Amino acid sequence: MSTAQRLHAIALTAAAEPSPNLDPVNWAATRVQAHAMLDDMLDYIQHIRARPVWQPIPSSARAQFREPLPDAPQDLADIHDEFMRFILPYAAGNVHPGFMGWVHGGGTVEGMLAEMLAAGLNANLGGRDHMPIEVERQVLHWVRELFGFPGSASGLFVTGTSMANLLSVLVARHARLGHAVRRKGVGVGLRGYAAVTAHRCIGQAFDLSGLGTNALGLVPVDGNFRIDIAALERAIRRDRDAGMTPFMVVGTAGTVDTGAIDDLAALATLAKREGLWFHVDGAFGALAMLSDRIAPRLKGIEDADSIAFDFHKWGQVPYDAGFLLVRDGNAHKDTFANPAAYLRREARGLAGGEHWPCDFGPDLSRGFRALKTWFTIKAHGRARLAQMIERSCDLAQALEARILTEPKLELLSRTELNIVCFRYRATDEINAAIVGDLQESGIAAPSTTIIGGKLAIRAALVNHRTEMRDLDAMLRAVLEFGQKREQKLRAMPCQGP
Amino acid sequence: MSTAQRLHAIALTAAAEPSPNLDPVNWAATRVQAHAMLDDMLDYIQHIRARPVWQPIPSSARAQFREPLPDAPQDLADIHDEFMRFILPYAAGNVHPGFMGWVHGGGTVEGMLAEMLAAGLNANLGGRDHMPIEVERQVLHWVRELFGFPGSASGLFVTGTSMANLLSVLVARHARLGHAVRRKGVGVGLRGYAAVTAHRCIGQAFDLSGLGTNALGLVPVDGNFRIDIAALERAIRRDRDAGMTPFMVVGTAGTVDTGAIDDLAALATLAKREGLWFHVDGAFGALAMLSDRIAPRLKGIEDADSIAFDFHKWGQVPYDAGFLLVRDGNAHKDTFANPAAYLRREARGLAGGEHWPCDFGPDLSRGFRALKTWFTIKAHGRARLAQMIERSCDLAQALEARILTEPKLELLSRTELNIVCFRYRATDEINAAIVGDLQESGIAAPSTTIIGGKLAIRAALVNHRTEMRDLDAMLRAVLEFGQKREQKLRAMPCQGP
Repeated sequence: MSTAQRLHAIALTAAAEPSPNLDPVNWAATRVQAHAMLDDMLDYIQHIRARPVWQPIPSSARAQFREPLPDAPQDLADIHDEFMRFILPYAAGNVHPGFMGWVHGGGTVEGMLAEMLAAGLNANLGGRDHMPIEVERQVLHWVRELFGFPGSASGLFVTGTSMANLLSVLVARHARLGHAVRRKGVGVGLRGYAAVTAHRCIGQAFDLSGLGTNALGLVPVDGNFRIDIAALERAIRRDRDAGMTPFMVVGTAGTVDTGAIDDLAALATLAKREGLWFHVDGAFGALAMLSDRIAPRLKGIEDADSIAFDFHKWGQVPYDAGFLLVRDGNAHKDTFANPAAYLRREARGLAGGEHWPCDFGPDLSRGFRALKTWFTIKAHGRARLAQMIERSCDLAQALEARILTEPKLELLSRTELNIVCFRYRATDEINAAIVGDLQESGIAAPSTTIIGGKLAIRAALVNHRTEMRDLDAMLRAVLEFGQKREQKLRAMPCQGP
Repeated sequence: MSTAQRLHAIALTAAAEPSPNLDPVNWAATRVQAHAMLDDMLDYIQHIRARPVWQPIPSSARAQFREPLPDAPQDLADIHDEFMRFILPYAAGNVHPGFMGWVHGGGTVEGMLAEMLAAGLNANLGGRDHMPIEVERQVLHWVRELFGFPGSASGLFVTGTSMANLLSVLVARHARLGHAVRRKGVGVGLRGYAAVTAHRCIGQAFDLSGLGTNALGLVPVDGNFRIDIAALERAIRRDRDAGMTPFMVVGTAGTVDTGAIDDLAALATLAKREGLWFHVDGAFGALAMLSDRIAPRLKGIEDADSIAFDFHKWGQVPYDAGFLLVRDGNAHKDTFANPAAYLRREARGLAGGEHWPCDFGPDLSRGFRALKTWFTIKAHGRARLAQMIERSCDLAQALEARILTEPKLELLSRTELNIVCFRYRATDEINAAIVGDLQESGIAAPSTTIIGGKLAIRAALVNHRTEMRDLDAMLRAVLEFGQKREQKLRAMPCQGP
């Protein structure tokens, strides 16, 4: 038995085990607790006048609140109790009629309830065909109507007006300079690097920051879809010789197509030697650090200058909850901080506190993403979140094993983490049709991508509720829909001259 | 009686009237409805396996869902019923164990409940001293611990990794090029314009987009804090003569310090003549378009090329819910759209639909901001939201009238909309102390800014719950704290040589 076969056998056994997920073990008890939380929040809003608008946070409360990353799950009632004692009484106070600071809305009960529904649906409004997108379009219709804009006008929810203003400058810049600005940027000779497999948002970041996508050197990958370090070194040397200024290298922990992890330790060493900023795009993969089993494969991430990742993927926090971590906090603050009279800091009162989040990014209006993350981490604890991440990987290995034993299926890349790319042995058209059939059947919803020029069925296992039976159902349906599609094709009369 | 006096008298009368706000009229009934909504959502998650992963949206559902901007309030139960019939069954399906598309998290009950609490607190995590900021810091501590980063490392929640990657490129760019890059940008000769009173985020947008803050010409204002159109024309001429390329002018509908509204019609005419992109920063002010009484003062906004504004300010939607509207949808899409294999569009299935929101901005992961906005607009209707906005303005006029009759207080700018800037007739130090005292007393929480070189107490009336009695309480406290501070100062022995 080869190592691969042995790993698959282990994964199959692990994946077949009874699998608790992150849903409540006792739904009835959780329901009671949930209703109590809702009542507390309604009480807060209904009786807001009885509270002070704001009150200073006692240093004891701040101190008591701190705790190391919890390993074990904590009871939801206990976490909520902490919220009621330490967080709710020390909010900014903008729900209160006496709040007149800055320009803050007061919120409504309907808005609060809708936010709960949105989080329950866990909708990601990035794209795809689902009704939440239609809700955004409905609001766009209303906004067009309000401002007398034509039906061809576009619109977009963003965090706040700071972001909307930034986007408008980008649109105006593009409208004036034409499409070339996205490639060429607005000047300067900086140069960054990432693998050809890096997510498109890296290139877009170069575009939006004015550097242009041409300033991002895309480096070939090795047979395992990892950045080719020797090729990267050659590219840097070539660019320096050409008078350019290399400044940044981006490693990926979990590529979007295959889940490959670049050799982060080698990148860290190279970046240090070359004096480059070392950034890790760990969108979903970085949280594998929670698992002692998988963390060693991310070796080198601890030497990054910055790491980007999402709590709303493997962390299972409702959308959206991205995170940026920067080693040098001063460099981070220097990039964004900007004094303004109406953002004066005071030694005391509500305008106290030295480091405000708005000093570290473009947003002045920012939702409370931290709370859902805090609740999720405490309710499940590091160990259980790690277990879920490991199970995703075990399931992926098991799925790979199934695919390898099924002659009608072809594996398109080695499964590194939780993403399995394969295809039914037929044309791209048939594979695209199979995925359409699958989605419309309601049995399973994989997506597609292109691997080695071939259309791949791509199963990304992220959901903590996914079990082996879901993968089996998906594979059975792929084989069935594939066969039907092939039969249909054979039954069609020959076309052509 | 002067016109100003007459207006004040009218405002005082209006402001003193019994004032319904956007809170439930019948709390008991709303509470019952809220609990039903919570139960429906818990049912959805608990029994998710019984549903199809995804299903196509019938075109009848799409059509039935559309409606013009509702004028009258709709019943919360009816809106929720629409949600249950049209939205929930046609979600993307990533809560379901059979969802394996792209890389989507599954969400948890705890995360959903926490999002409800966050929306109830309506916390804005941009800054200020409140416990929600400590929650974000707690998560930062955990993240540092997870990745082995030092205590000096900074971190920030963002929408998703696309945004985090963009910010990291900006930090790396700044780390390499130094502080000058924020002023000088990375090249090119584009030139934009805004009033000196424009929000700092306009300059930051020029910085982050690579143009540099120097590329933003700051134009003087007239006596009413509105952009000086003649001065703007001179600046454009001067810049063209110097070989620069004017490309954009930003008008403000409601400046942050005083609520001034630039002459948007004049700006629209000028922008058209000069071939400039005309953007309106209407962070809070743009939604005054909901009011037939105030809308005429925003004349010209309908001719803007783009408008940025927030639903979470005067729209009372929980944080965050910003919005960008662009007249030319193609120009908008051309700025951001970027094909990638893993974002393939298909003619059918879950990957259907031509225009995905990710084609119009930097985010691929985007929360469902539209739902809380949709609920808020439907539950209250345009007329009632307009009434709340008008009342904010009436209250501001009434507050101004009170200030003008009180000899110890000085009005620092004419009240245009909902922002009143004044001071206690004493030093800046005493005024800062008064605001600190006020906030710590829990009576009221205004903020501060600088008007004409003087520290101003700034009352921004945005909250739909604020009434005349809240303003009276605030003024009484200002006078009382001011007197105490002065007495304390007089009681102190003389310092000096």
